[in-house]
Amino acid sequence: MKERTSVKLTLAYDGTDFHGFARQPGLRTVQGELEKWLSEASERPVEVIGASRTDAGVHAGAQAVQFAADSLKVPPERLMAYARGTLPHDLTIRNWEVVPADFHVRFAARWKTYRYMLDLGQVPDVFVRRFATHVPQPLSEEAMREGASALHGTHDFTSFCAAKAEQTDKVRTIYRIHFFRQSDDLMAIDVTGNGFLYHMVRNIVGTLVEVGKGKIPPTALAPILEAHDRRAAGPTAPPQGLTLWHIEYHKDWLDDQ
Amino acid sequence: MKERTSVKLTLAYDGTDFHGFARQPGLRTVQGELEKWLSEASERPVEVIGASRTDAGVHAGAQAVQFAADSLKVPPERLMAYARGTLPHDLTIRNWEVVPADFHVRFAARWKTYRYMLDLGQVPDVFVRRFATHVPQPLSEEAMREGASALHGTHDFTSFCAAKAEQTDKVRTIYRIHFFRQSDDLMAIDVTGNGFLYHMVRNIVGTLVEVGKGKIPPTALAPILEAHDRRAAGPTAPPQGLTLWHIEYHKDWLDDQ
Repeated sequence: MKERTSVKLTLAYDGTDFHGFARQPGLRTVQGELEKWLSEASERPVEVIGASRTDAGVHAGAQAVQFAADSLKVPPERLMAYARGTLPHDLTIRNWEVVPADFHVRFAARWKTYRYMLDLGQVPDVFVRRFATHVPQPLSEEAMREGASALHGTHDFTSFCAAKAEQTDKVRTIYRIHFFRQSDDLMAIDVTGNGFLYHMVRNIVGTLVEVGKGKIPPTALAPILEAHDRRAAGPTAPPQGLTLWHIEYHKDWLDDQ
Repeated sequence: MKERTSVKLTLAYDGTDFHGFARQPGLRTVQGELEKWLSEASERPVEVIGASRTDAGVHAGAQAVQFAADSLKVPPERLMAYARGTLPHDLTIRNWEVVPADFHVRFAARWKTYRYMLDLGQVPDVFVRRFATHVPQPLSEEAMREGASALHGTHDFTSFCAAKAEQTDKVRTIYRIHFFRQSDDLMAIDVTGNGFLYHMVRNIVGTLVEVGKGKIPPTALAPILEAHDRRAAGPTAPPQGLTLWHIEYHKDWLDDQ
């Protein structure tokens, strides 16, 4: 019996013109476009599993998907070349690898980093407008860093989870919230953790922006966490500033092959 | 008699969804959108003059326009705030100033810089795809620099001017062609000169890319210039990599007010 060949792809996409990652009937989604493309390159319809269900408008620098490649007519090593000119312009394959049959693209992830970009210029920068949220008000980065430090570590993140989320276990670990400037006006906030609840990064950033504006004191972050109540935290930052930036996998899964 | 108030605006735009700068009936253009917007803010229809007629797909970090502001209902100092939410998202006003009545936005320009961006990654970067041209083949930057050095100075640039151009005097001065990396895979080429012929920067870049690929030797640039024949040079680089980056004005014009 031939062993099932499982392939992992690393994708980048500009989420602006997608209705999110997850397949939805009649809507343009990343999963939908990718499955249509892979199915055309295969003898049978292909379904993919994604590591993260990014929302409508959210981008990816390194989303991971896996699929059973047994019916592929294009050899996996030629998929990236085949993608050129056949995949939509806002979706690219950055890397591919054959993975062991028991690999699971979601459960094998060790940690993920999401990047949120804030355009702090007085006038929105047209060159980053698809990937950053414009905040013309002055922000205190010092206050934001102080507020963010309260979120490091393992906590029940109910206060930062969309009320409609299906996840029941709300405990997650944030390893790092890292602030840096890509340019004078472009602030990046990298949030790295072992997993994320629905809207968690956008709710954290929305709250930290309020801290930066001076509307929420940085010392309020600990009590907000303790409240276990979404209403305690700040607003949800808009999707277009968010990019799934990196997914780190357990080496064990990938070195077995 | 009230003196005519002339206002200069500095614009940035993402040219992807515009049919170029110049007004054209029935097409979405920068001039068309700006005049429509200014006219709605004025008692009479407003016409603008642009410093540069950027082509379809070409962007601007700092295009300049001027217009007679006498019938403006919004005071010039409030135009930028008024623009927020009323101008299309891909067109912004970065600056404004009242200029002397005899100022001319085109003739008062001392020099301009155009930036051309090349994405040299194996896979196109989705985050820069609107503003860079993807060239997956390896390029010799050293050969490109050597070739570019032959173009510095005052020359008849007929070989780099679109055959259909209306300009009759083809002599221009290039002050500098500057190469740098915005990131490992993103090469920027800044071309600074006292004026540019139709498609001149795109023809220079298209030729330099051929030099980088080894298809044209860098020593061929001087004879290509001497040929005074568009067919001697390389192809026209695509518009989306090009951005009108800076226009420098004579201080005399602007300090008079």
